[in-house]
Amino acid sequence: MSKITIPARKGKAAFVAKGQTIKVINTHGQQVVDTWAFNRADLTEFMSMEHSRAQILKIIPAPGDAMLTNHRRPILTFLEDNSGGIHDTLMAACDRYRYEELGCTTHHDNCTDNLAQGLAELGLAPPETPSPLNLFMNIPWTADGSLSFEPPVSTPGCFIRLRAVMDLVIAFSACPQDILPINGRTGKPTEAHFAIEI
Amino acid sequence: MSKITIPARKGKAAFVAKGQTIKVINTHGQQVVDTWAFNRADLTEFMSMEHSRAQILKIIPAPGDAMLTNHRRPILTFLEDNSGGIHDTLMAACDRYRYEELGCTTHHDNCTDNLAQGLAELGLAPPETPSPLNLFMNIPWTADGSLSFEPPVSTPGCFIRLRAVMDLVIAFSACPQDILPINGRTGKPTEAHFAIEI
Repeated sequence: MSKITIPARKGKAAFVAKGQTIKVINTHGQQVVDTWAFNRADLTEFMSMEHSRAQILKIIPAPGDAMLTNHRRPILTFLEDNSGGIHDTLMAACDRYRYEELGCTTHHDNCTDNLAQGLAELGLAPPETPSPLNLFMNIPWTADGSLSFEPPVSTPGCFIRLRAVMDLVIAFSACPQDILPINGRTGKPTEAHFAIEI
Repeated sequence: MSKITIPARKGKAAFVAKGQTIKVINTHGQQVVDTWAFNRADLTEFMSMEHSRAQILKIIPAPGDAMLTNHRRPILTFLEDNSGGIHDTLMAACDRYRYEELGCTTHHDNCTDNLAQGLAELGLAPPETPSPLNLFMNIPWTADGSLSFEPPVSTPGCFIRLRAVMDLVIAFSACPQDILPINGRTGKPTEAHFAIEI
């Protein structure tokens, strides 16, 4: 198994064949990894949070669940998760508008641009920015539907394992959010890793 | 105030000027109304559930809340709601794939096509199908994040009122779902109405 680095604050994408598994490792333990998957044969079909929630009938997927595309076909199945099971399907990827709103007056790395950058390294472009599967991101909800941004509960070296249900392009962003505590209270985004296995 | 019909099982769209209000009426009380809003000057900027949730920090918007676009700008504010306050931001619009999955072998009306049809009547086309604001749709969640599709809690003639924060195109679909009880246990989708006010 050869590990591929998702550089701190940046994106990385890769081709995955149907049947292969993808291990996503929270190397330093407190890093949110925004995740997207696109049908290799037609990038306009992609993993969709709003279609997946309607199928799994859960806010957060867990081992045994299949994530669906916007054509309601399984694209990734959750096989294994030793991270504590806290991920997010509710929040948009951060983007330049988010950092402008948070007071940034110059460029700030962001997950939306990282998706485009990761795909561009493969000679591809996203047809749009789907709402991401935010691995290790901690967005608790209350009975009345209030949401909050909280530090991850995951620990160094924890991982999740996914299986590709079709030939796909997987894209990750090591979220560069260093203003809110979503990547831990130290405000230091780190690298993460993934590995594609047989 | 002149009421516009959203025909049962179909879509309807309209131009709304900045500052105008839109009253959306659940005429027969049990009808889900999928709702989208697009910036009139640039349809690639549109109301986004995943961006709105990150701003309002709630699963369901309520009077006083502003819904954001995918550029994180307010597009619609919630002014008034006498429907019981139960709406949905979690589920994708129904589409032909959904009805195929539910066993339909011939065409079934669906909210995704209704968005396109409503905009087409104005000479427009949606750049994509954003996740909709599902007015009057009842998707309760539990502490562990389980979701379910339930009948509306709204009653005949109840309404919500929204204000346009920019010149926009509003689009509605009277959801044609007659297999799940999301439009009431009778399985009879109905018309709904809206009115654009000064």
